[in-house]
Amino acid sequence: MVLAAVFNTPNEPLELKEFPKPEPEEGAIFAKIISAGICGTDIHVISGKVPWVPTPIILGHESVGIIEKLGDKVTTDSVGNIIKEGDRIYWALGIICGRCFYCMKGTRTRCLNRKAIGLSTPSDKPPHLQGGFAEYIYLSPQVTTFKLPDSLPTTALSSVGCAGPTVIAAVENVRIDFDDVVAVQGTGPVGSFAIVMAKERGARHVIAIDSAERLHFAKKIGADDVVDIKSQSDQKERVKKIKELAGGHGPDVIMDCTGNPKALPEAIDIVRDGGRVLELGAYADYGPSPINPYFITSRQISIIGSYSKIPRHEYEFVNFMAKKWKSYPFNEMVTHQFPLKEINQAIDIVKNRQGMKVLVTPSGPLSK
Amino acid sequence: MVLAAVFNTPNEPLELKEFPKPEPEEGAIFAKIISAGICGTDIHVISGKVPWVPTPIILGHESVGIIEKLGDKVTTDSVGNIIKEGDRIYWALGIICGRCFYCMKGTRTRCLNRKAIGLSTPSDKPPHLQGGFAEYIYLSPQVTTFKLPDSLPTTALSSVGCAGPTVIAAVENVRIDFDDVVAVQGTGPVGSFAIVMAKERGARHVIAIDSAERLHFAKKIGADDVVDIKSQSDQKERVKKIKELAGGHGPDVIMDCTGNPKALPEAIDIVRDGGRVLELGAYADYGPSPINPYFITSRQISIIGSYSKIPRHEYEFVNFMAKKWKSYPFNEMVTHQFPLKEINQAIDIVKNRQGMKVLVTPSGPLSK
Amino acid sequence: MVLAAVFNTPNEPLELKEFPKPEPEEGAIFAKIISAGICGTDIHVISGKVPWVPTPIILGHESVGIIEKLGDKVTTDSVGNIIKEGDRIYWALGIICGRCFYCMKGTRTRCLNRKAIGLSTPSDKPPHLQGGFAEYIYLSPQVTTFKLPDSLPTTALSSVGCAGPTVIAAVENVRIDFDDVVAVQGTGPVGSFAIVMAKERGARHVIAIDSAERLHFAKKIGADDVVDIKSQSDQKERVKKIKELAGGHGPDVIMDCTGNPKALPEAIDIVRDGGRVLELGAYADYGPSPINPYFITSRQISIIGSYSKIPRHEYEFVNFMAKKWKSYPFNEMVTHQFPLKEINQAIDIVKNRQGMKVLVTPSGPLSK
Amino acid sequence: MVLAAVFNTPNEPLELKEFPKPEPEEGAIFAKIISAGICGTDIHVISGKVPWVPTPIILGHESVGIIEKLGDKVTTDSVGNIIKEGDRIYWALGIICGRCFYCMKGTRTRCLNRKAIGLSTPSDKPPHLQGGFAEYIYLSPQVTTFKLPDSLPTTALSSVGCAGPTVIAAVENVRIDFDDVVAVQGTGPVGSFAIVMAKERGARHVIAIDSAERLHFAKKIGADDVVDIKSQSDQKERVKKIKELAGGHGPDVIMDCTGNPKALPEAIDIVRDGGRVLELGAYADYGPSPINPYFITSRQISIIGSYSKIPRHEYEFVNFMAKKWKSYPFNEMVTHQFPLKEINQAIDIVKNRQGMKVLVTPSGPLSK
Repeated sequence: MVLAAVFNTPNEPLELKEFPKPEPEEGAIFAKIISAGICGTDIHVISGKVPWVPTPIILGHESVGIIEKLGDKVTTDSVGNIIKEGDRIYWALGIICGRCFYCMKGTRTRCLNRKAIGLSTPSDKPPHLQGGFAEYIYLSPQVTTFKLPDSLPTTALSSVGCAGPTVIAAVENVRIDFDDVVAVQGTGPVGSFAIVMAKERGARHVIAIDSAERLHFAKKIGADDVVDIKSQSDQKERVKKIKELAGGHGPDVIMDCTGNPKALPEAIDIVRDGGRVLELGAYADYGPSPINPYFITSRQISIIGSYSKIPRHEYEFVNFMAKKWKSYPFNEMVTHQFPLKEINQAIDIVKNRQGMKVLVTPSGPLSK
Repeated sequence: MVLAAVFNTPNEPLELKEFPKPEPEEGAIFAKIISAGICGTDIHVISGKVPWVPTPIILGHESVGIIEKLGDKVTTDSVGNIIKEGDRIYWALGIICGRCFYCMKGTRTRCLNRKAIGLSTPSDKPPHLQGGFAEYIYLSPQVTTFKLPDSLPTTALSSVGCAGPTVIAAVENVRIDFDDVVAVQGTGPVGSFAIVMAKERGARHVIAIDSAERLHFAKKIGADDVVDIKSQSDQKERVKKIKELAGGHGPDVIMDCTGNPKALPEAIDIVRDGGRVLELGAYADYGPSPINPYFITSRQISIIGSYSKIPRHEYEFVNFMAKKWKSYPFNEMVTHQFPLKEINQAIDIVKNRQGMKVLVTPSGPLSK
Repeated sequence: MVLAAVFNTPNEPLELKEFPKPEPEEGAIFAKIISAGICGTDIHVISGKVPWVPTPIILGHESVGIIEKLGDKVTTDSVGNIIKEGDRIYWALGIICGRCFYCMKGTRTRCLNRKAIGLSTPSDKPPHLQGGFAEYIYLSPQVTTFKLPDSLPTTALSSVGCAGPTVIAAVENVRIDFDDVVAVQGTGPVGSFAIVMAKERGARHVIAIDSAERLHFAKKIGADDVVDIKSQSDQKERVKKIKELAGGHGPDVIMDCTGNPKALPEAIDIVRDGGRVLELGAYADYGPSPINPYFITSRQISIIGSYSKIPRHEYEFVNFMAKKWKSYPFNEMVTHQFPLKEINQAIDIVKNRQGMKVLVTPSGPLSK
Repeated sequence: MVLAAVFNTPNEPLELKEFPKPEPEEGAIFAKIISAGICGTDIHVISGKVPWVPTPIILGHESVGIIEKLGDKVTTDSVGNIIKEGDRIYWALGIICGRCFYCMKGTRTRCLNRKAIGLSTPSDKPPHLQGGFAEYIYLSPQVTTFKLPDSLPTTALSSVGCAGPTVIAAVENVRIDFDDVVAVQGTGPVGSFAIVMAKERGARHVIAIDSAERLHFAKKIGADDVVDIKSQSDQKERVKKIKELAGGHGPDVIMDCTGNPKALPEAIDIVRDGGRVLELGAYADYGPSPINPYFITSRQISIIGSYSKIPRHEYEFVNFMAKKWKSYPFNEMVTHQFPLKEINQAIDIVKNRQGMKVLVTPSGPLSK
């Protein structure tokens, strides 16, 4: 039997429950979970704010596993690396149909038949185990899988969570041009990785905006300048200050990674004429913000939304982390690890914003 | 001496005044005005709402002229067509420096040294005549000029005014993909030409949204479907209706050509997930609109501002009109012509929205 | 039993053979073929020049069918239109995995697991019927399907064959900018549709280059100018002539739709500095052409290859034809129809270039 | 009087000659040259291979100067930094008209009225001094100028020469996507900076291809792998090796920085399907290479030419060097410095490929 944490009812603890061990069908993979990150989205789901998630369900969409059993005909991961039982793998969140209206339109993140691991498939039917908060996971033949290189520690990969591919997708949408000055609003996991990606795409100067306690890490991960919203609490002064740090005309790109509806109007005040504002953080509905169309036209500003990612972004994320995990302080981002049985405590830590990245490690704690 | 209409004080009639005839310097052109369109922007300026326009000034930035005298060394227009005195020419609104911060950034419409003909240079210093509301105009060596082909009537070119190149620039920014469904909000000169450009760039279906009296022409110029905002006055019903006309998921692109701050939030409601909203009409400040960042992220929407144009867009506009002026009912758009001495009456017609395109024709009325 | 034409051995006639009627599995569709176009690629395959095609196989990848039987759970086509038995459908050529190296790289036409209907799956195993040269076809659950609107005649859709979506994909790759001057080399089905697409994407002027007998139709389908390679047989003179027709500096875009290795060097001679050359026709290996790297650098030219298409392009093709089939003389393109039993005669017609588009119509001849 | 080196006749030494000191007109700047790099193009010119360069002329288009005298009304550099006499400045090579056919088409590097400093304006008319191989230079009002930050050493900026902005322009044209594998053919100044730019734009892995003596530096400047064309002299084996280093399918992007016509066909053999080949090095005409159109179509390859740069690229180059000159071994690239009087010896060093970057330093040698 396999132990898993099941989400049944909003705002109640997850239920620990046992499920039968399934046999992988042709093309499928059965894997032991060694790391399952808790994402802000999981907290939204557990709070009942994401109505499209069915119950009962095993959550967990930021996981790493060890192959326990390969289904028939599986000899490689999705991109052609040879795999065998005992290998460590990572997999893409989404299964995209490739045939619906949105796939035809190229907006594949909004695929009408999209299945997201740990978010879409209820646990009451076999093979039950389709989320990361469990001892094992069943990866159907449609899942995109990636063998992990031995040199990449599990904690390094897990430290960024699904913020990694989400930011990679977003930067593709907003575009960072060579020599751009970029400001990042909000420096949690998403904003921290946004700083990294801005640098990696050739930004000349990155300004991080947040409260002081988070800016220390923002600086460490690559921000050239930081602006503390508390000591710079006057909005007008703050805008002026950031424009000055950017050379006077304002940054070329603002990346809003806050989830705070006040951030978007401020981004429009800050950005240079002709600049781009990425709206990346608004995963929950806090109502409208006042946006003046006059500035959008007369200052020629673009506001670009980016939602989730497609498997390509997870592919690029794994490649990036394998190459560069030592170049950034990713290892400092995992602040907590919990056994599966203590998952409800782990969730509380995230809910109360007491850590940076909190992992469930059902097969025992990971060394860094 | 040369008669010209001078704007001195907001909300007062333009003053008719005489200026000495200048000799064109090397590289310059002196031209007789045969058509000068009155643009909505002129009305804003005269109403005192565009503070960056200096006074006294000769307005008029939608003009066509006959070459009266060529400065030394001028043998061709800017793109290499041989010109001589007596030839009919058109010219670009803007003179862009190519060297300032915004030119370096590729946002050339916001060039910090931009001069706009009929909007930037006061008339109190020689050569005085740098706007279209006059018998003659002085085109400095920096102006981009285009010889007009004989087959293109002046009224056809003038019918669209500067809305033409403005829309061409905007469509470049918002991008129309092949097979896109496009909705156009507001069908004055800008919206009408937006319908044309959507079709020309391969849109499959164009839906025009306005009040009934304007939709007749919108249909004539190419709209496949029209939605009357008065008979469809319930906002929720209207959004539903437009989405249905677009096939259910909403149009791929919305082009807001209204100047009405209510249009942008409605555009976001209408557009499909992953779609693009062009904010093209907000040339005057009517304050903010409520925009929900949550929809921008979760539905992956882009809002794209576009401001004015650069000479390339006027080049493309002339080429387009020369080729296709007969394919659309442009000749119906010029509803009024006035001699220069009656310019204040002409301005009243535009102010009161009594016509589609109103021309000042200082050299006598034009036949169509 | 179902009659089908099987390709067993290069350069021998197809064999007419009977197969059992399969039951559609869940998600699949079984359809009666009413139109199956013969493509130039089929001729290459039958001649033994496409080694990756397995045998025995039922060819035919340009087909239209009537739904005979829907598998369980099929209630709509891939993009959400309700379908039922008796409805007319079209389907995409390719089945793309979405997970391999090339899918991760965004080069989905080169998907390593790609299955092309009528080109990839041998006929010796059930369900056997996976090509268009047959009375019926089995469309597996992975096929992208499109219900056809009643207003679109089957012959109109079939007239362009797979050249339609191939050109749509190619134009996406080469990009036609508004106001571009485009030259099309070769005006068979691919080049003819390239003329149409250039116009639809906003090209100002299209020049068709071919031998005189084909240029009549090129002109009819939209070419503004035509150049006969026989009467203009001097290569230098021809290049000069085409540049003149384009206004002196050469066309912005050249689309090579010939399959002739001499066309590419000539395209580079013709195109303006900074222009783009699309290499679309080289589906067979006729060896190298001499290309001077010096011109590519110093004249800043791009050469862009485009191969096949993905289902999105077939979606756009169906939408386009439904809207615009009457705007172009597509109905003149179907020159021959043959019953399935006479398929080998039909193939000979194509091989000898005696017709424009040759159809096999297993359910009886189609009226236009 | 001002000493300058004048190019009169191909293949003869430059003549040292004195010119009168000019007064800068309004908008102009007169500057003392402190560093003037010798570029491969200068060698081509002196060898008589660049027929469009007029004589007599003062060559030198990679220079840094100290402001000697500002013309009237000059208070800032082109992008708004305050400047005064004694400040160190850099300037863009090209003066672009912004109004000709090619400027209208967006191909501004091919501007029909382009003036390139040190390459376009003969020295026989005042103000004579329009090239870098002189004690002073006259920068006309149309030149784009950039004040240099004190923290950036002149030798660091000069080490890359005009290869810097040329590569920045090229990378914009070929596009480096995040996670791309890039191979660079040829690792002189252009190839070396191509390695840097590939890394800066997010390439995951860069492979340098050259002869062993140059690969040491290629590795030092950032190449992850190097391939010696001498020890790997079998072309087929070499292609295989490079594809393996790239992970099997070949690099996403090949940048040909060689000037050798054999490099382009090999690039096409190496690149992955759907990949891009940048042709950047073919500044001299060594005749055609055999390129198979079949590979371009069937493997969907793009070949992208890039020529020179526009002032934006010099702006970005200065910004980049100011920020990152310490991150790469640029200071090792200046191998020689010569006083102006020994310029002909300096030229011989470059001609014989004895150094990496050779500078003329008319105001005395520069410390690093």
